Amino acid sequence: MPRIVIVGCGFGGLEAARALRGAEVAITLVDKTNHHLFQPLLYQVATAGLAAPAIAAPARHLFRHQANVTTLLGDVVAVDAAAREVKLRDGQSLPYDHLVVAAGATHSYFGRDDWSRFAPGLKTLADAFEIRRRVLLAFEAAEKESDPQRRAAWLTFVVIGAGPTGVEMAGTLAEIARDTLPGEFRRIDPAAARILLVEGGPRVLQAMPEALSASAQRQLEKLGVEVRVSSRVTAIDDEGLEVQGGEASWRLESRCMVWAAGVAASPLGRQIAEAAGARTDRAGRVPVEPDLSVPGHPEISVIGDLASAQSHLKGHDARPVPGVSPAAKQMGRTAAANILRRLRGEPTEAFRYRDYGNLATIGRNSAVVDLWTPWRRIQFSGWFAWVFWLFAHIYFLIGFRNRLVVLIDWGSAYWSRQRYARVVTGIDPGTTDS
Amino acid sequence: MPRIVIVGCGFGGLEAARALRGAEVAITLVDKTNHHLFQPLLYQVATAGLAAPAIAAPARHLFRHQANVTTLLGDVVAVDAAAREVKLRDGQSLPYDHLVVAAGATHSYFGRDDWSRFAPGLKTLADAFEIRRRVLLAFEAAEKESDPQRRAAWLTFVVIGAGPTGVEMAGTLAEIARDTLPGEFRRIDPAAARILLVEGGPRVLQAMPEALSASAQRQLEKLGVEVRVSSRVTAIDDEGLEVQGGEASWRLESRCMVWAAGVAASPLGRQIAEAAGARTDRAGRVPVEPDLSVPGHPEISVIGDLASAQSHLKGHDARPVPGVSPAAKQMGRTAAANILRRLRGEPTEAFRYRDYGNLATIGRNSAVVDLWTPWRRIQFSGWFAWVFWLFAHIYFLIGFRNRLVVLIDWGSAYWSRQRYARVVTGIDPGTTDS
Repeated sequence: MPRIVIVGCGFGGLEAARALRGAEVAITLVDKTNHHLFQPLLYQVATAGLAAPAIAAPARHLFRHQANVTTLLGDVVAVDAAAREVKLRDGQSLPYDHLVVAAGATHSYFGRDDWSRFAPGLKTLADAFEIRRRVLLAFEAAEKESDPQRRAAWLTFVVIGAGPTGVEMAGTLAEIARDTLPGEFRRIDPAAARILLVEGGPRVLQAMPEALSASAQRQLEKLGVEVRVSSRVTAIDDEGLEVQGGEASWRLESRCMVWAAGVAASPLGRQIAEAAGARTDRAGRVPVEPDLSVPGHPEISVIGDLASAQSHLKGHDARPVPGVSPAAKQMGRTAAANILRRLRGEPTEAFRYRDYGNLATIGRNSAVVDLWTPWRRIQFSGWFAWVFWLFAHIYFLIGFRNRLVVLIDWGSAYWSRQRYARVVTGIDPGTTDS
Repeated sequence: MPRIVIVGCGFGGLEAARALRGAEVAITLVDKTNHHLFQPLLYQVATAGLAAPAIAAPARHLFRHQANVTTLLGDVVAVDAAAREVKLRDGQSLPYDHLVVAAGATHSYFGRDDWSRFAPGLKTLADAFEIRRRVLLAFEAAEKESDPQRRAAWLTFVVIGAGPTGVEMAGTLAEIARDTLPGEFRRIDPAAARILLVEGGPRVLQAMPEALSASAQRQLEKLGVEVRVSSRVTAIDDEGLEVQGGEASWRLESRCMVWAAGVAASPLGRQIAEAAGARTDRAGRVPVEPDLSVPGHPEISVIGDLASAQSHLKGHDARPVPGVSPAAKQMGRTAAANILRRLRGEPTEAFRYRDYGNLATIGRNSAVVDLWTPWRRIQFSGWFAWVFWLFAHIYFLIGFRNRLVVLIDWGSAYWSRQRYARVVTGIDPGTTDS
């Protein structure tokens, strides 16, 4: 029976495994965490609006009824293309006849990895716990701080990068400061906290049309977020950051900074590209053939954020596929279908990305939606966009119980302006317990 | 205005602060975490049945409407009884006119603190996350392990100590192995896991009547838990433990051990006792006067698990007060009332513990209840006791949203035999992210 190894249980790996349901293959799905993570809502965990289990489903639970899938917890450190084996950190090897690599992306600090200690990114649950801890502790520290300048630094929050993640984080931080926490402190006024969103490019949400970018920026500013576009971060340290905008450069004192400015592909990407005699792109992604396989290695497919793929829609030029969840899911299905074609001796098919558009939420009652339907393109923003965003995300969440709990948490949060996951166990920013 | 410092926001500190609502005092409530923890349900977080926020309420949120309370996140390291100041780890001092110390208890390893690395206890959320991680990772490791002996060690779970916490942990681990996980693994059968409950004394649940102990043991064994009473642990290491029972001693290979065998008072106890020229008892608890104050220091009260207190019910001899949540709550209310009496120049009153009885759950459909009503003592066990236990715990949980979520999680868990908080982020037992 053909052995298929799928590395990663994110959107790409999950869909690839599902698409092989019922096939006469032996699938091993391996991930370095035990869960499938609904990343679009990760910022909710980071801002104490949801508890982690609402957006994380145990991988082996999802596949319990799919007999041809064996789920393993393991960290893949190398792919041996010659021996057709995947090597785990604990020393074990998983042999394969076909391999799907969906290991995703991590943060990129554009070469300044030392900045990661000061400004954590948001890609995993561990990241979300760390950010949540820093945010909640910043208000606690401000309440205890007698020096006004140091207190102001504790009450200055900076989000770096104005893509959807950054915009969502900034908007939600503003809500925490203005809606959730006032009344709970005696010495500080949380509503006086400064929330800054710093973006190197000329506008927020650059993947969206200009009109929606402008709308998003207006909505952010209405929430009290200070938006700084065309502003590049040049240095980050324990107590703040330095920003360069045009001619001017300035320093911001902040004790809580979040990095949402760049992603880099998993290090596996470099390995696989080498095995294929190819080169990764600047973000470390592996260039793939139209059918998502690695050049020269039809038995290896790379999908999701790890792949630098092109979409070949009829009547269009090939277009680069963006690193978003719907693309990863569609690539997963195509890669799986192509494996089955290869097993049947049929020719494979090129990947065609069906782009449904983009959406991003800014905060309570507020979002932007850029919808590409087969008939027309629809852009809207504000309250109705927010409701659309809400239901779209709940719809795509996995698990009825999760949907119910998220509806309840968000429903009650909407009415009461509260947040239900404000848990911090350790005091020191240095302690790693969460 | 008189300044009152309350150390600890557990059951004792919370009730003490609440009982001072409306009084003309300035209360500072300081805790080393940011939340009030509903400890009776901590084992549910440890066994992935509930997410942490369901049982942890942010302390400053609970007191947002009580204007005379300022909540601070701080680790109290010393009490200076002469200067009437409490010192925090970050160097700050909190002066007081009256002090209530409710810092609680931690684990006791009977002098063998090195055992804590191998067998974590269950007192805080950080503990619960660690235990949950070890339990889930043990099954994952077993799935990957080819050596049968090592696999058996991964599938052997040992709970040390058969008080309510140990019994609840052991019963729930058995449910995880027999109900929740079967079907999700391909190489192991989780139902074949061994769950052992090791107790040094002659029976489980020694605080309860013998008939209920016997019932609990029967219910545990029905769940497949191997109960070993009159068995003392003599050594614990990374790969197992050694147990001495009567004449025999034997070794158990286990990679997942939980310590529920002893508590010790917070180290603050020793400090306070010294200041009073008194000595703590063997568990480190501070002996207090009938009105809960420290001998020679009427301005300092010690309550909850940190106090060695006597209850002076009319017509009874003085009886020691057990370290249970209802006692801590009642002591909190008495200590607060006595502070108000002192401020009015009135004599204080002795603490009278109203003991409502004991209850412990073993697992699904299964509990023991020892109820002391004013009219008669009622003991029952089995399904009805479990329903009683369930509703009692939900009733005492704080927060409507928490009650609703817990009802949903438990309701769906009951029907589906699932658990909804099975999240693990890191792989290595050594990594501290949760």
